[in-house]
Amino acid sequence: MDLQQLVTQIAKDMIARRDRGIVADYIPELASIDPDHFGITIALPDGRIYSAGDSDTRFSIQSVSKLFTLAIALGKLGDRLWQRVGREPSGQPFNSILQLEHEQGIPRNPFINPGALVVTDAILQGHEPREVLGEVLRFIQSAAGDGDIRIDENVARSEAMHGDRNLALAHFMAAHGNFFNPPEKTCGTYFHHCAIEMTCEQLARAGRFLVGGEGAPRLISPASVRRINALMLTCGHYDGSGDFAYRVGLPGKSGVGGGILVIAPGRAAISVWSPGLNAHGNSHLGTLAVEQLARATGWSIFG
Amino acid sequence: MDLQQLVTQIAKDMIARRDRGIVADYIPELASIDPDHFGITIALPDGRIYSAGDSDTRFSIQSVSKLFTLAIALGKLGDRLWQRVGREPSGQPFNSILQLEHEQGIPRNPFINPGALVVTDAILQGHEPREVLGEVLRFIQSAAGDGDIRIDENVARSEAMHGDRNLALAHFMAAHGNFFNPPEKTCGTYFHHCAIEMTCEQLARAGRFLVGGEGAPRLISPASVRRINALMLTCGHYDGSGDFAYRVGLPGKSGVGGGILVIAPGRAAISVWSPGLNAHGNSHLGTLAVEQLARATGWSIFG
Amino acid sequence: MDLQQLVTQIAKDMIARRDRGIVADYIPELASIDPDHFGITIALPDGRIYSAGDSDTRFSIQSVSKLFTLAIALGKLGDRLWQRVGREPSGQPFNSILQLEHEQGIPRNPFINPGALVVTDAILQGHEPREVLGEVLRFIQSAAGDGDIRIDENVARSEAMHGDRNLALAHFMAAHGNFFNPPEKTCGTYFHHCAIEMTCEQLARAGRFLVGGEGAPRLISPASVRRINALMLTCGHYDGSGDFAYRVGLPGKSGVGGGILVIAPGRAAISVWSPGLNAHGNSHLGTLAVEQLARATGWSIFG
Amino acid sequence: MDLQQLVTQIAKDMIARRDRGIVADYIPELASIDPDHFGITIALPDGRIYSAGDSDTRFSIQSVSKLFTLAIALGKLGDRLWQRVGREPSGQPFNSILQLEHEQGIPRNPFINPGALVVTDAILQGHEPREVLGEVLRFIQSAAGDGDIRIDENVARSEAMHGDRNLALAHFMAAHGNFFNPPEKTCGTYFHHCAIEMTCEQLARAGRFLVGGEGAPRLISPASVRRINALMLTCGHYDGSGDFAYRVGLPGKSGVGGGILVIAPGRAAISVWSPGLNAHGNSHLGTLAVEQLARATGWSIFG
Repeated sequence: MDLQQLVTQIAKDMIARRDRGIVADYIPELASIDPDHFGITIALPDGRIYSAGDSDTRFSIQSVSKLFTLAIALGKLGDRLWQRVGREPSGQPFNSILQLEHEQGIPRNPFINPGALVVTDAILQGHEPREVLGEVLRFIQSAAGDGDIRIDENVARSEAMHGDRNLALAHFMAAHGNFFNPPEKTCGTYFHHCAIEMTCEQLARAGRFLVGGEGAPRLISPASVRRINALMLTCGHYDGSGDFAYRVGLPGKSGVGGGILVIAPGRAAISVWSPGLNAHGNSHLGTLAVEQLARATGWSIFG
Repeated sequence: MDLQQLVTQIAKDMIARRDRGIVADYIPELASIDPDHFGITIALPDGRIYSAGDSDTRFSIQSVSKLFTLAIALGKLGDRLWQRVGREPSGQPFNSILQLEHEQGIPRNPFINPGALVVTDAILQGHEPREVLGEVLRFIQSAAGDGDIRIDENVARSEAMHGDRNLALAHFMAAHGNFFNPPEKTCGTYFHHCAIEMTCEQLARAGRFLVGGEGAPRLISPASVRRINALMLTCGHYDGSGDFAYRVGLPGKSGVGGGILVIAPGRAAISVWSPGLNAHGNSHLGTLAVEQLARATGWSIFG
Repeated sequence: MDLQQLVTQIAKDMIARRDRGIVADYIPELASIDPDHFGITIALPDGRIYSAGDSDTRFSIQSVSKLFTLAIALGKLGDRLWQRVGREPSGQPFNSILQLEHEQGIPRNPFINPGALVVTDAILQGHEPREVLGEVLRFIQSAAGDGDIRIDENVARSEAMHGDRNLALAHFMAAHGNFFNPPEKTCGTYFHHCAIEMTCEQLARAGRFLVGGEGAPRLISPASVRRINALMLTCGHYDGSGDFAYRVGLPGKSGVGGGILVIAPGRAAISVWSPGLNAHGNSHLGTLAVEQLARATGWSIFG
Repeated sequence: MDLQQLVTQIAKDMIARRDRGIVADYIPELASIDPDHFGITIALPDGRIYSAGDSDTRFSIQSVSKLFTLAIALGKLGDRLWQRVGREPSGQPFNSILQLEHEQGIPRNPFINPGALVVTDAILQGHEPREVLGEVLRFIQSAAGDGDIRIDENVARSEAMHGDRNLALAHFMAAHGNFFNPPEKTCGTYFHHCAIEMTCEQLARAGRFLVGGEGAPRLISPASVRRINALMLTCGHYDGSGDFAYRVGLPGKSGVGGGILVIAPGRAAISVWSPGLNAHGNSHLGTLAVEQLARATGWSIFG
């Protein structure tokens, strides 16, 4: 199969569509993004890439960053992490506080907001935010083989100014004894790693550590790779995870900036970016694009 | 890999364990089952099987039957089915009525009880229960290549005597306009298909239609196979689906009788049976056994 | 104070208003009622009455009947009743099934639907529906001093045809062991006592047993009178009970047919009827009328 | 009736009981209180008082302070307050965040924690915490006719150190646009007014402004008096309000320090204090004491 021809065709099809979803508008830095952007990159384990569209434009990776912090936390804490956060789909919106109340401050999984805050809280312990942020950036740069990846300080500052809901989640978990740093400190660190900006090409390259196969960077154990992929499949798209699994059949993690990182185990990492979101808060065209890609390649993990 | 040696070893390891979980006790027919049973079968697409333990003892397949009714309903209604039932993990126990109230009588997915009742209601329409039950049995017999599969009438009768919760779910959906047959009629049909009894060998053979590959029976389209596998992965073990995906990495569907059918796409169907359940209502030893099998074979779909 | 002049003025004010609320439309018998009806009656303990408007037109008392079944159940079971139903406001719509799931099938109070079903189930035990319905009618007739009070069989039949939600509640409580008669039997009895039809004059007279004072019928103990009044104040208007207490300051019980029975302890029973409902399912003009009456008379129990 | 003899008898009966409830233990200042304390005072509108037990010992009034801040807020904002907080019982524990999520950050009533935080936030606007606290203290001192009422700074500081749950509620409401001061500032003010300490005698005297009648201080309008009494009856004891209304039949407001202020409209204000709490978080002996008092005096508002 000619992967370059495939991504070119997908980009063409997506750019031709009229339906683009709704751009996130809770902070001005995201609200002002042109919804017409579309980029896609396939990265093979050995580093070869196939790109089309705006694959070289930086965007805010937002929740996709939760993959990298989870990988770091699993490396540091191992299975002890699961005492503080679960591994189940939540059946609730990504920033819901309901389940926390019913389940004593233990978030359902590391990809909903309270779960990601716990992960950041766990890797922060005893360190300064800037040390931890440096570690996260180095992990991503190493995975991507590219040192030019950085945080957009304006986005981070803007997130902090609209951070009441995350602060509520953090204080709520603190009240249940499941938070160890001051909520402002952990939330500040979290807002910063969500504000990392990357291109599709950088993101797809960085995702190869979850692909396995010849030439892929080995940053975590094969068992951890499998487990993170499983979590992405069941929980990676918030309350639209079941639908993504049904339609695409590949593990993926989306961000509210419109990016999605998708893993075809043993085969490739795929990144897509289009800022308009669907009803579940996942990139509308991005989801359609990887659905088309999965159909064309037969890369579904479900047969 | 020597699959016969593998299942023999797994059976030996499981039988040696002291922890056996808790046998379901809401009906006497299930409560009286000896918790020491353990059976396992691997069936390859071409029909070869590898078995160990009580693989030839019949047990009540219970919710595993929901796989077969879903396959039939998708064949009959296609995507129209999804107007009546969702495709998302529920984040709630299998028989919860909470989400139904918040979501206007549309169950989250076809594997929680209200969703499975909708599926049965959908294939019942305009038919008599015994016709539909005949169709379900013939589908399973055809998939298994074995005509000796039947309903345990005592179990069905006992389920009906303890059926108030399912009747509540059915009336509740009827009140929301999402139920088309009299609740008693659909529930009666549902109790009967849950009361089908099969051996591990029969169940593994019957599961091959979800494996694909050379020699596997083709009862539904490849796209439907992928989609049912995706639903099994995200929703097949109720509120323990995320944990099963994390530990085993394969789609599966469990039943309260202690059976689990697991699919390794393109490779094999695996059935396990052990009556003791874990906290999520899934077979305790069965889950451990397929975890061991997945580790040994490297059949995880996640790399 | 001239009470006749007061009710005449209130009726005139209410009839002049344009806002009438929305008539209940879940059964044709209620949907077809003219929303322009308005009736009001004040009954003093000694039986004197002051009426205005359509005070002599029969209407379906619906949930107001729950007052009479509660009085009968308290007489028969005493405090044992509270093992099966609570005494707290629910914070949920009247027919919600949510709280039942969280609280093991024990309804919050006897005025929400599941609570009233439990009350009916309790007085039904060991009897035939028609015996129990005879007892309820005799109780009301005796309280009103009027034998001409009966059930509208068309309404009862229509309720039964739209009874799925109540049947769901009943089966759900049965599943939790808090229901002792077959759900269809108790629900049938319940639909019939809700279908009792009375005029404002009959209803106000019948309410005097909750007023106390010289000349009022003594059908239950003074302690039970106080307790039922307390329950009416905290729970008598579903999820609008707090608002009714705030605005009117008197215990009352509303029905979806547009009737409200209000008690001014030691002073009078007041009935109003106007079919249009407000957002909480209580008579819109009826609520405004008793608010005006409470302000004019100073009968608020809150000072 | 000899009120002095009555309170003496009640104190004697209460002190003789073995069951004392459980003292609140979330801060050391409350946890260390001797559970054997019991005090009671009846204050008539004209200022005469009848006391028994530890009626002259200061205790932390905690949530009873919400009565005074509500009175101040209603005086300042009038009905505009109800745009930010409801008037319905919550059906949930006092510090629940669930309903806030379902109802867009509008708390159910001013007596649950989020509602009281909104009230404090409303009177804080544009002022410094110490100005507002001075105003609250002057209001209470004026109502009690006693200048010797003050804040226990140790309690306030300790509350702040355990304040994560209230901070979570405040940030959550801020995220919904229903909070106008920085959460830390409003919560700090709230912790301070909850830390006011008073004796039973001071509290009963201070409560007379809600009694009405000859000689009672007139700090708010009669309409506001009635409304606050109505709110106390439906919501004053958290999720035990229905039970208190059923058993006692008088409006009351409890605090986690073991105090309750009860109003018999037109007759008297009653304060009780005993630190052991019942399952709903209200004083165990205090509730029993006012139940006995209501029975003996016939002061129930329900007949």
